[in-house]
Amino acid sequence: MIPRYSRPEMTALWDPEAKFRIWFEIEAHACDAMAELGIIPKDAAQAIWDKGAFEVARIDEIERETKHDVIAFLTNVAEHVGEPARFLHQGMTSSDVLDTCLAVQLTRATDILLADLDRLLEALKKRAYEFKHTVCLGRSHGIHAEPVTFGLKLANHYAAFARNRARLEQARQEIATCAISGAVGTFANIDPYVEEYVAEKLGLQPEPVSTQVIPRDRHAAFFATLGVIASSMENLAVEVRHLQRTEVREAEEYFSPGQKGSSAMPHKRNPVLTENLTGLARMVRSAVAPAMENVALWHERDISHSSVERMIGPDATITLDFALNRLAGVVEQLLVYPDNMQRNLDQLGGLVYSQRVLLGLTQAGLSREDAYAVVQRNAMKVWEEQRDFLELLKADPEVTIAEKDLEALFDPAYHTKHVDTVFRRVFGED
Amino acid sequence: MIPRYSRPEMTALWDPEAKFRIWFEIEAHACDAMAELGIIPKDAAQAIWDKGAFEVARIDEIERETKHDVIAFLTNVAEHVGEPARFLHQGMTSSDVLDTCLAVQLTRATDILLADLDRLLEALKKRAYEFKHTVCLGRSHGIHAEPVTFGLKLANHYAAFARNRARLEQARQEIATCAISGAVGTFANIDPYVEEYVAEKLGLQPEPVSTQVIPRDRHAAFFATLGVIASSMENLAVEVRHLQRTEVREAEEYFSPGQKGSSAMPHKRNPVLTENLTGLARMVRSAVAPAMENVALWHERDISHSSVERMIGPDATITLDFALNRLAGVVEQLLVYPDNMQRNLDQLGGLVYSQRVLLGLTQAGLSREDAYAVVQRNAMKVWEEQRDFLELLKADPEVTIAEKDLEALFDPAYHTKHVDTVFRRVFGED
Amino acid sequence: MIPRYSRPEMTALWDPEAKFRIWFEIEAHACDAMAELGIIPKDAAQAIWDKGAFEVARIDEIERETKHDVIAFLTNVAEHVGEPARFLHQGMTSSDVLDTCLAVQLTRATDILLADLDRLLEALKKRAYEFKHTVCLGRSHGIHAEPVTFGLKLANHYAAFARNRARLEQARQEIATCAISGAVGTFANIDPYVEEYVAEKLGLQPEPVSTQVIPRDRHAAFFATLGVIASSMENLAVEVRHLQRTEVREAEEYFSPGQKGSSAMPHKRNPVLTENLTGLARMVRSAVAPAMENVALWHERDISHSSVERMIGPDATITLDFALNRLAGVVEQLLVYPDNMQRNLDQLGGLVYSQRVLLGLTQAGLSREDAYAVVQRNAMKVWEEQRDFLELLKADPEVTIAEKDLEALFDPAYHTKHVDTVFRRVFGED
Amino acid sequence: MIPRYSRPEMTALWDPEAKFRIWFEIEAHACDAMAELGIIPKDAAQAIWDKGAFEVARIDEIERETKHDVIAFLTNVAEHVGEPARFLHQGMTSSDVLDTCLAVQLTRATDILLADLDRLLEALKKRAYEFKHTVCLGRSHGIHAEPVTFGLKLANHYAAFARNRARLEQARQEIATCAISGAVGTFANIDPYVEEYVAEKLGLQPEPVSTQVIPRDRHAAFFATLGVIASSMENLAVEVRHLQRTEVREAEEYFSPGQKGSSAMPHKRNPVLTENLTGLARMVRSAVAPAMENVALWHERDISHSSVERMIGPDATITLDFALNRLAGVVEQLLVYPDNMQRNLDQLGGLVYSQRVLLGLTQAGLSREDAYAVVQRNAMKVWEEQRDFLELLKADPEVTIAEKDLEALFDPAYHTKHVDTVFRRVFGED
Repeated sequence: MIPRYSRPEMTALWDPEAKFRIWFEIEAHACDAMAELGIIPKDAAQAIWDKGAFEVARIDEIERETKHDVIAFLTNVAEHVGEPARFLHQGMTSSDVLDTCLAVQLTRATDILLADLDRLLEALKKRAYEFKHTVCLGRSHGIHAEPVTFGLKLANHYAAFARNRARLEQARQEIATCAISGAVGTFANIDPYVEEYVAEKLGLQPEPVSTQVIPRDRHAAFFATLGVIASSMENLAVEVRHLQRTEVREAEEYFSPGQKGSSAMPHKRNPVLTENLTGLARMVRSAVAPAMENVALWHERDISHSSVERMIGPDATITLDFALNRLAGVVEQLLVYPDNMQRNLDQLGGLVYSQRVLLGLTQAGLSREDAYAVVQRNAMKVWEEQRDFLELLKADPEVTIAEKDLEALFDPAYHTKHVDTVFRRVFGED
Repeated sequence: MIPRYSRPEMTALWDPEAKFRIWFEIEAHACDAMAELGIIPKDAAQAIWDKGAFEVARIDEIERETKHDVIAFLTNVAEHVGEPARFLHQGMTSSDVLDTCLAVQLTRATDILLADLDRLLEALKKRAYEFKHTVCLGRSHGIHAEPVTFGLKLANHYAAFARNRARLEQARQEIATCAISGAVGTFANIDPYVEEYVAEKLGLQPEPVSTQVIPRDRHAAFFATLGVIASSMENLAVEVRHLQRTEVREAEEYFSPGQKGSSAMPHKRNPVLTENLTGLARMVRSAVAPAMENVALWHERDISHSSVERMIGPDATITLDFALNRLAGVVEQLLVYPDNMQRNLDQLGGLVYSQRVLLGLTQAGLSREDAYAVVQRNAMKVWEEQRDFLELLKADPEVTIAEKDLEALFDPAYHTKHVDTVFRRVFGED
Repeated sequence: MIPRYSRPEMTALWDPEAKFRIWFEIEAHACDAMAELGIIPKDAAQAIWDKGAFEVARIDEIERETKHDVIAFLTNVAEHVGEPARFLHQGMTSSDVLDTCLAVQLTRATDILLADLDRLLEALKKRAYEFKHTVCLGRSHGIHAEPVTFGLKLANHYAAFARNRARLEQARQEIATCAISGAVGTFANIDPYVEEYVAEKLGLQPEPVSTQVIPRDRHAAFFATLGVIASSMENLAVEVRHLQRTEVREAEEYFSPGQKGSSAMPHKRNPVLTENLTGLARMVRSAVAPAMENVALWHERDISHSSVERMIGPDATITLDFALNRLAGVVEQLLVYPDNMQRNLDQLGGLVYSQRVLLGLTQAGLSREDAYAVVQRNAMKVWEEQRDFLELLKADPEVTIAEKDLEALFDPAYHTKHVDTVFRRVFGED
Repeated sequence: MIPRYSRPEMTALWDPEAKFRIWFEIEAHACDAMAELGIIPKDAAQAIWDKGAFEVARIDEIERETKHDVIAFLTNVAEHVGEPARFLHQGMTSSDVLDTCLAVQLTRATDILLADLDRLLEALKKRAYEFKHTVCLGRSHGIHAEPVTFGLKLANHYAAFARNRARLEQARQEIATCAISGAVGTFANIDPYVEEYVAEKLGLQPEPVSTQVIPRDRHAAFFATLGVIASSMENLAVEVRHLQRTEVREAEEYFSPGQKGSSAMPHKRNPVLTENLTGLARMVRSAVAPAMENVALWHERDISHSSVERMIGPDATITLDFALNRLAGVVEQLLVYPDNMQRNLDQLGGLVYSQRVLLGLTQAGLSREDAYAVVQRNAMKVWEEQRDFLELLKADPEVTIAEKDLEALFDPAYHTKHVDTVFRRVFGED
């Protein structure tokens, strides 16, 4: 995480202050549960809530001696709570606190990411309807193919992010579990009820079976999902970068007054936001492999996952949060140039209708192979000699379609007739 | 994919023969739908089913000229079908065939993988119940922690693979879509009904919106799921490898008569299957990054994903299929040594009960910090001087627990009292 | 590896036949060394060379019982050699054979890859000189920047591949070592001289210290190098794809007579080779992570690396070999369109000279900030209103440069004056 | 980067203050070179050195408007320098500053890492000699194999890190280049002499040919090297973790007074440092994939690499620096238990001599196959019935070696006789 690519709401989630507050709540809720079970005095549980406090700096100081962060935290809290503090953490192990805390942090982070996706989805939908019928080039292999509409392009990305939203909700369930099962997960010194109680208070599910830790396949699945979302983000970013290429210029990132595109070349207007997003996507994805390597912990746990998660937990969520908002902003403010879309569409003199001519010829009785040869032969002349496709076809004796019928084949409306159908599929029946 | 690590059923799925058969069915079903719509003659559609055939070698031969595999295939089929072949593939684009075929292959591959997981789950459950109450060491950081049961260990892995099964079903839905939407996904030359018809025939869902291709975030999510499963597989494999370490030897891979562990050292019995699975897990995971890089195709598509999928499609599914079966076999035949479990449990003279002593002391009125210091001080003597933990405690004047009560704390049953609860959570109410 | 993306010379290297032949030579050379030391009879060593043979199918058959490939091989060889076979493999361990064999395979594969790079370098150099002075657009962020020459573009890629060649030679040294040190690397049962002897015969260096295996950091460094080369390959492939975009069309992959670009759209000429190379680059890179995970073997070795290397050894080298040759072919046959380069250069009416105007204004006394503002203000009008940049500048009262001097700033030759210098740096003083 | 896993010296390298200082020096040196060429006044160049200054907060403030960091920096410097500031950055492009600065940062970071490796190498060498002849188990597959010495184990890791040191020096050369070639690398507005001059002042080499940026294959190779080093680090960390396992306990991380191993179990002494290093290794490796994806920038550059490098530049070097020092500390303070090594060596009653018995039998005339069968048959009884291997052999009629000769085969010294040879190979002739 670096400040340049972070937003305060998400960053705050990962502050030491926030983390220790969650730790405190886990411990205090657990005491309540134990008091309810009659294992510890109700007064003690209440005293913990009343007097419980901590200071980040003091915890750091204690940890330098004990080399154990949870013990340092408990010692600091005990300094405030006094005698009843001895009931804290009874029968629990550090991982009960750490893993449940991570679950809380990741679910909260996910809630922010879900809101980010909602903002992005709304922007995509709005712009998709805005350009629902704006004809532009469809390209495959970077080569002009056939007409589509700009709204369709955006609908595609909308659908991808709608899928990503569903995946992220799934991923949220993956990591929203609470484990308070003691040293090696046997509940030897703690009643399973405590786990259920704390889980409920924190909006989590009890982990059905834990070792010393919550199993890391959950986290691997979570970070893999972030990697998939990042990849969709890259896909949309690359689309914008392509559309903004000087020769294409069908769309452009908003360029604010006062902005400078280059220190050397004052004429520059660069798609720097989407290029940046392309890089950020690589970074979010880079969390996937370590998260997967974290799964194979030794026996009931080793702590190799911990340093990884201290990094990728904040890094991947903060970066993705920043990036999704940047991307939403790009979509919301995207400058779209329908005139240029039309200019590009016309660039090759109707070559984009080659398939329709091909089909016309087969319907007129030619074999597919022969029709293909006729159309390709004429098309190649357009590429090589900048000739007009329609004129070439008219002049070709093997083209057995009447001129008027031929001209009718060069019609963009033919290609956009199912836009409504697709929009209904994507956005529902509105 | 290499034969050494593959099973015939899965490999067959990816044969050229199987692939072209799926292509044929897609094309023929599409013709049926078009005939139903009155776009092509019913006779033609029937003729395609009746006379349609292909030869892999002939397709390869034609492709060498056309440099386009779908065209080569269609040409070869036309050689068999004759005149009605001109109705084949009308309004479709190659990707309609290729992507829908990949969806069929991946869903079939997934069905095999689901069956593999079922075999593994059954084996884990059976062995978990077999050793439900077999006490053994729980270890954290590779260091003796507290008693668990071997059944609990297996229940943990069962739960992980049950989650993996659910993830894989989810992943199956991700990739079970059919796109027959023409050149750039506009249905310009093909009615959306054809897509719906073919989808239904092949057990797929119509892709709500496609470009020229089915969006690759679906495949990224799919291969990421395989990567998570592979990681859980590594986790179990590493557990077996640890248990088989000579000094531990609590369990061992089955060693068949005639097997040789080493060309040089005849005494060797090595956990080669689980070591192999550890490596195979790395390979399955290696498909995740390229699958994610595949998402950001240019505009309506480029073909960079194709070579990747030609490799990771078969490689990841074949390898995982082989590996899951190997793993199931390891679990089914695992040699388990309860006597060694007990020996290891006793190795440190009761040190594994240190927490219970700690809690006993706090219940007897010591502060948590003081109690910790007392227990730790005695425990360190066990590590450093191989002394007996219980005797040391009895001799320590700060240990304010009666001898008899102290002895009672050294009881494995205390640690296993919630095994039933956990089993109910994992396996349900049986 | 799949046949579609492989060349016979490289594939042959990885055949079982070739592998067993190397195994045989290692064993036979080792016997020679032992005979020289008087440890085994010279007759025996000679008999092994004379009668030694093997059959792949028979080895497979034996392995099914022993589950150990080296033992199966030795047993099969013994069937041919008879009594003297008992001197084979004395004091050696399987890994001595396997790891030394892998070293031979990887060095041979590297020699092919080095030749591939030479072909590519030659093609790049030839085309670089061909277009040394062909002016074209330099672009940053996909936006027109300033003029370069097409030869300079190619010189950049030449330099990258020259670096890659040097890296690959370094990587070859990394893996060109021989270990014949016995069970756990102690030479307990084999004299270090045998290792030195065999190493020399096979063109390898003795491994200074091995465990049971050659240390895998060597292989990690090797595959990482292939990953870097693949990334440079992707870089050049992406350049070609961009240049071939319809709106750009400054260069194009060779399109052979009879080739079909699309089954649906006969007009298509797609950069399918470089798109394919983009995908293959992802695959070569996918070997890096597993190769790095292979380094941390347990104690003196575990066999988790083996399955990984059985796959990535052939896959990464075969794929890279195929890809480098495909890339060389693309460069050799690349269609280059200088007219289109000029057309694109002119597209923005001289905007690409904005920096020179900026510098002209600062030399004429404006502060950099003021000059920037003046130039940017005019440039934005070109973007937004398609005005002519030079005319705008002439009309701007704040532009304090005489018209004639202003016109002189719009000169491509100014930008290409150091092409000779750069070529000398890259290609040397020829 | 997180403070927990960072050291101040390395972190300081990446401070904004340090970065802008390098920017300033690049600009000021460039002015000196231009003054020398007579392009700008010598007074101006001197004034820049004399009055040049910047404030991080002010730069941030300006950047919020310009959205361009180099322009913001130059504006801030101009506020201090006054009029002569207009000569700053003439003919240069932002990347000239950014990329050259990154080269300086990475080379300085590398110098720290080289010193880290030296500390680690020294520790490994010292401890290797300390335990040069301390016999311990060699293990393959986690199973007892044959005796080695603990010094040999350490010598292996020494050799790996010596290779890593050489690789890192190579990697340093990869990234130690300076590009001051202007907008798209043509030197249109800047003389190549400036590049040469600045390069020399900063201890870099001029980049032979750059686009707008230094080619990213250099950085990919650099980060790949860090990934290889991290993998070797993981290898040594995993070795320590294995040796510290309770059942093995041949070595142990230093456990300081006051340290607490577990909040719940006071008896714990866990290998937390090496587990932590295992996780950190995963993080350093995670930089490799994005660094490789950074290579394929579009045309003369896009800025997608920038966000990646802002993160992995500091993260990977800071983490590796921290980790190498932690690892050196682990080695320096490692507690080694030769008595436990001997105990483990004796655990299987001499089974580790099985190969020597095998060879003894073949020398006594048995075929290798028959000898193997005899030894294996007896060895299996040791595993299964805990019998004594030597006694079993003595009692076996097929063992045709005299008892006394048999006993002589059970000799650890036989296995350590080449330790001196290996040490000479690894550490040289001292």
